Amino acid sequence: MTYCVGLCLKDGLVFLSDTRTNAGVDQIGTFRKMTLFQEKDRFFTLMSAGNLAITQAVKEILLQGQLLNGKNIWTAENSHDAAVVIGDAIKQVYERDHQALEKAGIDFNCNLIFGGQVKGERPRLFNIYSAGNFIEATPETCYFQIGESKYGKPILDRVLNFNTSLNLATKCALISMDSTLNSNISVGLPLDLLVYEKNSLKANKLVTMDESNPYFQMIHQLWGEKLRSAFNSISEPSWSGANKSSAISAPAKKMGSVPVKKA
Amino acid sequence: MTYCVGLCLKDGLVFLSDTRTNAGVDQIGTFRKMTLFQEKDRFFTLMSAGNLAITQAVKEILLQGQLLNGKNIWTAENSHDAAVVIGDAIKQVYERDHQALEKAGIDFNCNLIFGGQVKGERPRLFNIYSAGNFIEATPETCYFQIGESKYGKPILDRVLNFNTSLNLATKCALISMDSTLNSNISVGLPLDLLVYEKNSLKANKLVTMDESNPYFQMIHQLWGEKLRSAFNSISEPSWSGANKSSAISAPAKKMGSVPVKKA
Repeated sequence: MTYCVGLCLKDGLVFLSDTRTNAGVDQIGTFRKMTLFQEKDRFFTLMSAGNLAITQAVKEILLQGQLLNGKNIWTAENSHDAAVVIGDAIKQVYERDHQALEKAGIDFNCNLIFGGQVKGERPRLFNIYSAGNFIEATPETCYFQIGESKYGKPILDRVLNFNTSLNLATKCALISMDSTLNSNISVGLPLDLLVYEKNSLKANKLVTMDESNPYFQMIHQLWGEKLRSAFNSISEPSWSGANKSSAISAPAKKMGSVPVKKA
Repeated sequence: MTYCVGLCLKDGLVFLSDTRTNAGVDQIGTFRKMTLFQEKDRFFTLMSAGNLAITQAVKEILLQGQLLNGKNIWTAENSHDAAVVIGDAIKQVYERDHQALEKAGIDFNCNLIFGGQVKGERPRLFNIYSAGNFIEATPETCYFQIGESKYGKPILDRVLNFNTSLNLATKCALISMDSTLNSNISVGLPLDLLVYEKNSLKANKLVTMDESNPYFQMIHQLWGEKLRSAFNSISEPSWSGANKSSAISAPAKKMGSVPVKKA
């Protein structure tokens, strides 16, 4: 599987992806899921989840400019139009491969996070689906996840909003990734992290992190400890019916609220 | 959907289930997913996820003693044999309904957590699948989850083990549930909580919790706060290449580790 998360915040964008792929547990691979597209007047990042053959085919079409309709992301007027171009690339791969995939009983599965900025517009972030259609992040819903998204969602929901600084958001994305790595072996190191500062049109903060990265090491160790001490600091339930915040219930009062059957 | 979690620990068992069901977002219901079976010499708890018509049919067979092979959980020699009986009930529903379900394009989806104790044996916990087969929890893997399990898995993985006390484990299960409730609207209050003390053969600690329960209220409020303060206490990444735990990287050094393509 895969875990990628993309954030669209007031100061810019954050992209984080793992590198594990698997076709069954006995075929584990390491593939980069982040691709950057950079020109003087534009900067885009693409992250991919789903069938690797499909997502690589889409990337190839984009990088080689092989779209049959002649469009490409280098001349798209803005990020939205660039997302349309990516959707077109997906549709082109679909046309080529879907019949053979259907015969093999394989879903056409391609889920992308795409974001960036063209000079003159604000940074934008999109989640592009297998059909080539897409949705855009807004201040109310400022992040997208693809792949194994559920383990790492609670921390995003608790601490993140559109006004979060890029540095805090980076920390949050890494904790979200660490929770996922911890609970699911189909997501794995190294990670690709890109922090894009609004209007820079450049990848100034780009890093590949493996187990030797001091910051990720620190997060990995400390977050587990902090979580355990937060856990320990919450009082245990008390089964006596006292009127305190630790009172879970007077059990007798509530007995039988679940069907209890005897022979 | 559903979220249920069952724990098998040195001092007993913990069961926690939500009550939300949905068939599409416009058909939300409240159904209990926990059923208790209690007799002088035995105590069992069953929690269910999957297709509600199937899980209710299985429960009905068990409660009415309608198994065609004449078995029932009241006379099963031990918990393992009782789990076999539940598997038989699933198979019986399958025989009755699977063809019609197939025609309607509906999966035969039934996922159960079953646990308890027969006098003279230790408490045991099982995860029973749609085919009626099952696995048992062990000291190494002392919990099972069914339904929307991923959001609430990280906290279980961080703090729980076989020697955790029942009170701490109850707190952990409730935090796991709170994380799930927070990130997925297909899981909802009220909750049914049962803490079973080894060798008691009784449901001494059983409660239904809604938003007015003081302990759940406290967890719901405090856990979010504690998580945010744990988050804030971890230092932010520093992009200067200093040799500190907050050093995320000297970015220039690692540039180009992700394919960067220009037109």
